[in-house]
This record gives sequence, C-alpha cells and structure tokens, in this order.
Amino acid sequence: MATRTLAHWAVSLNDIPCSTRSAAVKSLYNYIGCAIGGSNHPTTKKARDALSPFFGKPTSTLLGAQSPCFSKADPQHAALLNGIASHVHDYDDTHLATIIHPAGPIASALLAWAECQGGVSGQAMIVALVIGIETSCKLGRAIWPHHYDIGWHITSTTGAIGAAVAVGKLMELDDEQMMHAIGLASVQVVGLREMFGSDTKSFHPGRAASSGLLAALLAQKGYTSSEKALEAKRGWANVVAGGGVPRLDDLLASLGQTWEVEANSFKPFPCGIVCHPAIDAAVQCHHELRSKSPALPLENIEAVELRVHPLVVELTSKENPQDGLESKFSVFHGCAVGLLSGKAGPAQYADDVVTSREVIAMREKVKIISDDSLLADEVHLSLRHQRGMVIEKHVAHAIGSAHVPMTGQQLTDKFVDQTSLVLGADGAKAASDAAWTIAEVDSVETVFPMFRGRPRGTAR
Amino acid sequence: MATRTLAHWAVSLNDIPCSTRSAAVKSLYNYIGCAIGGSNHPTTKKARDALSPFFGKPTSTLLGAQSPCFSKADPQHAALLNGIASHVHDYDDTHLATIIHPAGPIASALLAWAECQGGVSGQAMIVALVIGIETSCKLGRAIWPHHYDIGWHITSTTGAIGAAVAVGKLMELDDEQMMHAIGLASVQVVGLREMFGSDTKSFHPGRAASSGLLAALLAQKGYTSSEKALEAKRGWANVVAGGGVPRLDDLLASLGQTWEVEANSFKPFPCGIVCHPAIDAAVQCHHELRSKSPALPLENIEAVELRVHPLVVELTSKENPQDGLESKFSVFHGCAVGLLSGKAGPAQYADDVVTSREVIAMREKVKIISDDSLLADEVHLSLRHQRGMVIEKHVAHAIGSAHVPMTGQQLTDKFVDQTSLVLGADGAKAASDAAWTIAEVDSVETVFPMFRGRPRGTAR
Repeated sequence: MATRTLAHWAVSLNDIPCSTRSAAVKSLYNYIGCAIGGSNHPTTKKARDALSPFFGKPTSTLLGAQSPCFSKADPQHAALLNGIASHVHDYDDTHLATIIHPAGPIASALLAWAECQGGVSGQAMIVALVIGIETSCKLGRAIWPHHYDIGWHITSTTGAIGAAVAVGKLMELDDEQMMHAIGLASVQVVGLREMFGSDTKSFHPGRAASSGLLAALLAQKGYTSSEKALEAKRGWANVVAGGGVPRLDDLLASLGQTWEVEANSFKPFPCGIVCHPAIDAAVQCHHELRSKSPALPLENIEAVELRVHPLVVELTSKENPQDGLESKFSVFHGCAVGLLSGKAGPAQYADDVVTSREVIAMREKVKIISDDSLLADEVHLSLRHQRGMVIEKHVAHAIGSAHVPMTGQQLTDKFVDQTSLVLGADGAKAASDAAWTIAEVDSVETVFPMFRGRPRGTAR
Repeated sequence: MATRTLAHWAVSLNDIPCSTRSAAVKSLYNYIGCAIGGSNHPTTKKARDALSPFFGKPTSTLLGAQSPCFSKADPQHAALLNGIASHVHDYDDTHLATIIHPAGPIASALLAWAECQGGVSGQAMIVALVIGIETSCKLGRAIWPHHYDIGWHITSTTGAIGAAVAVGKLMELDDEQMMHAIGLASVQVVGLREMFGSDTKSFHPGRAASSGLLAALLAQKGYTSSEKALEAKRGWANVVAGGGVPRLDDLLASLGQTWEVEANSFKPFPCGIVCHPAIDAAVQCHHELRSKSPALPLENIEAVELRVHPLVVELTSKENPQDGLESKFSVFHGCAVGLLSGKAGPAQYADDVVTSREVIAMREKVKIISDDSLLADEVHLSLRHQRGMVIEKHVAHAIGSAHVPMTGQQLTDKFVDQTSLVLGADGAKAASDAAWTIAEVDSVETVFPMFRGRPRGTAR
C-alpha cells in the first residue's frame, strides 16, 4: 500500500501548518540563492554548453543566466541545469537525519514546470514543495543508512521521486496518475557517491529533477507503471535498500504527523559540513580581533590551534589544496579565510584565493588536534597574535546546525553574498527581495525576471 | 582499471571480424523493424503526446512516424521514443546468457545521434553498435545473475552505459572523455522488473538510450566523473550487483576475444521467450495441415496437447487473456493463433484478435502438461482434427534459439510483417531494403526517410 498511501496523501493535502510553510519558504529562498550563485560555475557552464543546442521551446528560466540568448530553456533542461547549479558549490541545504539536500531536485523541477505552465500561485508552489520534500525525506529515512552506506547518493535517488510528486501536485494529478508518476520516477535511480569530487556530483540532483519532471509528464498522459512500485518484492525500496530492511510503512505513516522540511538546515559555508564549527569559530575570532583593534594586521596572527571532532581530521585534513574544489576538503583553508576576511563564501573558495600567498601563509599556521570527546558540531579554537593577544573560542554548536539555525538575516546575507558575484550588488538585492516574496505572489512567473542577469548594455 | 580498460578498448577499436559485423547488421536490421513496428502502439503514442511539446530542433527521425508534424525530434527525445517503440511489442532481440535485449538502448541513441550529426558512415555506425553491445553484455555478464534476481531490468541498467560508449565512439571521444562518459552513464541506473506488464517496461530501454546519449554529450564538453566509476568500492558494479561479487576484470579481459553480439538472438514471436517452442510447433502444424489439405477447416481441430518445460506453465498459463498485453503471457493464445493463421506476429496479438470468438474457441482446445525432462526451447505437440487427422510434432529447439537462429529471410519476413501495419506493404518493403543496406552507405541519414510514414495525401 505504500505507493498508494503516498499518492493519496500527496493528492489530498492542501493545508499545511504555519511553521511548515515558513520552513518551506526558507528552503526555497536558500535554493534560489544557491542556484543563482552556482550558475556561472565551470561545471554548470560545461553542462549548459553541451546541452543548449538541444533546448526546446524556452519557457523556463535558467537561474542566474547571463547570456540573453540562453536565459531560458525547455522545462526538462532548465530542471537539469538549475539542479546542477544549486548543488555545485556544496552550499545548499541539509536534512540532517539523512544528509539529503532536499530542495535541489524538487525545487528545480517545480520552478521549471511552474514557469512553463503559467498562473501557478506562490501558495500552490509552497505546498507542492513541501509535498516533494516530505516524500524525499520520508523515503530517505526508510532506507537509511544502508542505502547511503553501499554507495548511493541519497539526495538524488530519493529526489527524483520527490520531484515527480511535487510536479504531479502542481499538475493536479489524481491518485492513479500520481501512483504511476511515483513508479516512473522510482525506476530512474540516479547518483553514486563515487562521483564526489567530480562534476558528476552536482549532475545528480539535476538529473533527479529532470527525471522526476519526466515521470510526471508521462503519468499525466496516462502512461502506466506499477501500483506497488515502492513496496513490491522487486520494487524500489527493496532493490535500493542495500541489504537493509526498508521501513516504508512506518515512515509513510508519519506523513503529515512530523514535517521533515522543518528539520531542513542551511549551510553557512560552501564546503563539507564537518568543517563548519572551525570556520564558525574563525569568523568569530576575526570579528573579535577587529572590534578590539580595528587596525590590527591579521596576517601577524602567529598560531592557531583547533581541537576538532575526529571526522574533521578524517575528511578534511588537506593541508595544501590546489584549487577551489580541493579547498572544500581543507579545514585549514576554511579557518584561514575565516580569520582573514571574516567570511567563507564562494568568493573565499575561488581558485585565486586558494593559491594566494596570504591565504597559504595563514593555512600553514593552523594546527588541528583530534578530540573524540567533542560533538560533530563542536570546536575549540585558540589563537595567538604577534602582539601578545590570545583568544580562546569554544563553539558548542556550529552555526547552521540544528541547535543554531541560520536566521533570516543570515540567509539573506548568504543569498546576497553569493548572488552578487553573478547579478551584481543591486541585482542581488532585487533577487533576494523577490525570492523572499515568492510564496505570496499570484503567479510565480512574474518574479523570474529578477533571477536572471540583465541583457548586455543595460545599466546595472 | 575496469573503467579505463573499457574506455581504451572502445576508443581504439576500429576493425571487427566479418562474422561480428554480420551479426551487428542483423541486430540493427531487427531493431529498426521493431522500432517502426512499435511506433503506433498506444504506449509509444502516450509518450509522444506527453513529450512533443518539449521537443528541441527536429534533427532525428522518430522511426515509423506517421504525422508529418512530428516525424523528427531532438536526439534525446528521439532516442527515448525509439527505445520505447523498439521494446513495446516484446519482439526485439535477446542475448541469451544475460537476457539483455541489447540493441534497443544502444541503437536508439546511436541512430538519433548519427542523423543529428550527419555524415556518419554505415561502417562507423556498425562499429559503434558493436562496441555498445559488447559493453552492455560484458557488464551484464559481470553482474549476472544477482543483479537481475534482486529486481533490476538488466537491459536498461547496462544499456545506458552501452549507449554512452557507442555514441562516444561516433563522437571520437578520447580515453579520458570516454571514461567520464562511462561514469556519467553509470550513475543513471534505470529499470526495475516490478514494471513488467506496464507501459514503464518499455520506458526502460528508451530512458537508457537518452541517458547514455546525455552522458556522452556532457563528457564531450569536458564534464568529469570518476576514473573508477565501474570498479570503485562504491562504484557501479558493487552498488548494483545485488549481493553478488561482480566479475568485471574477467569479463572486460574478454573484450575483443569473444563477441557477445554474435550470440544475440531475435524473437520470432512478440511474447515471452518461453512460449516460443509451442508457437513454433503450432505454426509448423498449420502449414502441414494446409499442405495436406488446403481447404481443411482449421476451426474443426478437436484437441491440442502441449508437453512443455515447467517454466511455460509457471509464466504463461493465462487461459483467458483479455487484451493484447495479457495475451503475451498466454501460451494458449500463441498456440491458437499459430494454428489458425500460421503466424504469430503483432497482428495476432492485437486486442480484437485476442477477443475474437474463433481464437477464444481454439484457445479452449489447448491443454498443457508440464514435463521437466524437456529443455527450455523444446516442445511436444499432438493435435487431433475432426476428420481423423492426427499430427505429432517435436520441436527440439525452437526457432530463434541459439541452435536454430532466424535466417535472413525469416528476419525480413518479420520486418515486413510488422512494419506493413505502420508503413503499408510498399513502404515496408522499401524500409526493409534500406535497413539491410544501412551498413554500406556513406552517410546514414540518407536512408532515414524510408523509415518514416509518408505525409498525408501522398500515394502509397
């Protein structure tokens, strides 16, 4: 009954609690910022160059698009490319219980379809987004952790089904059609962890988005799959569970009882989550030093010691990263840029920052000590400056963790910071305002122009 | 080294043995007939209706297309739709050691890309097809049988990688690009056996085709994946092996030593392969009765007894099928139409034939007896006619099996028979001639017009 249960719940749901709606608005806002921010990354550009000759009727915005020629694509390609862009900086959202990054696959499909369709209200979009995220995260919980352990990238394997259900909701599919959409998405299992560190990692949420959209499009025309796609002996859950016993019934029984989207968190820094406590502490030290002594030369910090959770050492102890991608796996880099600039956004992970003399010198002063008495989101930092100043900083829970969620203002700063690099400062501010209000508009396509770069020759 | 080994082999191969080439020509010919034959099936039509609003520049033929408006699509959609059409009648090819239907995913991607690209010779196409089929079937052997047993549809899970490599060969990718194409295809794992009996079964080879093509398009532009995509601890083979231990190295060592395409077989009847011996026997009886007594009323056959392999009873004992799809799982139906009409092609599996009084009456006269001393491709049939005639027929190996491959003439008859229902008799003959010569042309796009229906108002 799992497939039918999920389909019926998705088709029937229209009211969501206020707290759920608010969490979904934040998830969508953060997604839009990340997709614009990732739109001019080389990975995204390669994919756009490869696929633009095959675009169909351009109905759907490529978020952050700079070229007036290719500011839109058909919805399947828009879903794919926006999905790539949203994940490419490792800066998106995290459902901590499953480490799913839920918004990417689902919002990419949803925005592409909503704009193509026209007349979709912000309210309808938010409800559909919630349904997609609940689908993806409940299914993820049902197959966690074996599914992830054997090597599947759980963001995309569950994301395709979430995207299909979300788009199916906008299409107003009936129960039967929705079951078939779930089935059609369930046979498209995308994403292997082996690809982490390559362009293909961000292909995963992109392809999940286009696969989910395709599933909904076919189901809408009566294309059939199985009514037991998820739960059958040889259905999705058993096949992808990786030796574990899927807990489909338990998890689907909690649909509408607990809301997974409310547990969605947002990355404050564009790198692996285990580095975040150290970066948080470094950023705090920067501001403390600056407030004590505004003219202090930060390059004269003498030594920095970090006591960290053992996973930090295991996963991010790259001492001498060579480029932006490698620097995401270096706690030394994150700490160094945090101390020097007081922030660690995409600009601080650019190739030329990674290879700058000042940053290299600071990285070399950072030492790490593994301490298994610490929590994963905890760190101790101690710093000594040439002028005799010593700072001790204990971060009990890093920013962005479940205990210290990003505030609305912090999300806005993150959005504006990363989108400024694409849209310019004014464009970024306008895009941010539009993205915060998308849930309230009558017709979401009216806000999409704010998410594209301006045609050449137009004043900024 | 598996990924690198496969990539290097595919990039380097240019000469293939004569017997391999001949087998590939037959596989391509049979594929084209099946894809044209399946083009007006309701499943294919639903998919075309759903997706035609999103087609890009129409460069690639939809095989068998009747509408002048939609006779072509962009290559990704053409690959998807032709892949669906090629499999929808369950009438395609079978690599018996893995029960992969190899041509569908690979040829669908290859034809779509070759026509879009232009100037591809028939010879280059055949080499690329061989490379794709070897890739798909060697990988299939490496993960057989556990992969299939747990529920994956092995045709499409291996077919996406075969399609990527085949298209990559036409693109003249280098070793690095080819490795990344393999990796990009490997993360798109399509197809669950749970979908057998629904429209989604034939979606699988279609989606494998478009996924493989997409992988090659991205790799061509420098999009990266992993150089150990197939063999890594969390790479493709280990993740999809279903608990078995993949034998990648063994199988890839046999690349170019044994040619899987030479073991490809072709279905003589559009239904599950276990029914084929019984249908073969029934068709032979029809012709024997007709030659003995041309005017004999076949409806006065009194009784038919089949001694069959136990799998026939297990899989195809549906006594009273209600439509064409169900009749594919009825040995009674296959036997009845074989006796009455001397053939069992798509026309004999049409809904109105399945429900006709004459066919129902004949089905009711057929009894089956399970006999575990028989081989899977063996059958004993005994028949008694009202006029006292008795026929005993022992088929030791059914037509289409490894022992009794379809002859060139039988393949032609199959092609013309199924394509006549789409293109008319003259069109079918012309398409058949073109398909037999495709390997020899300088530029394959010159033959594609023969594979489309003629615009309305044109004389047949």
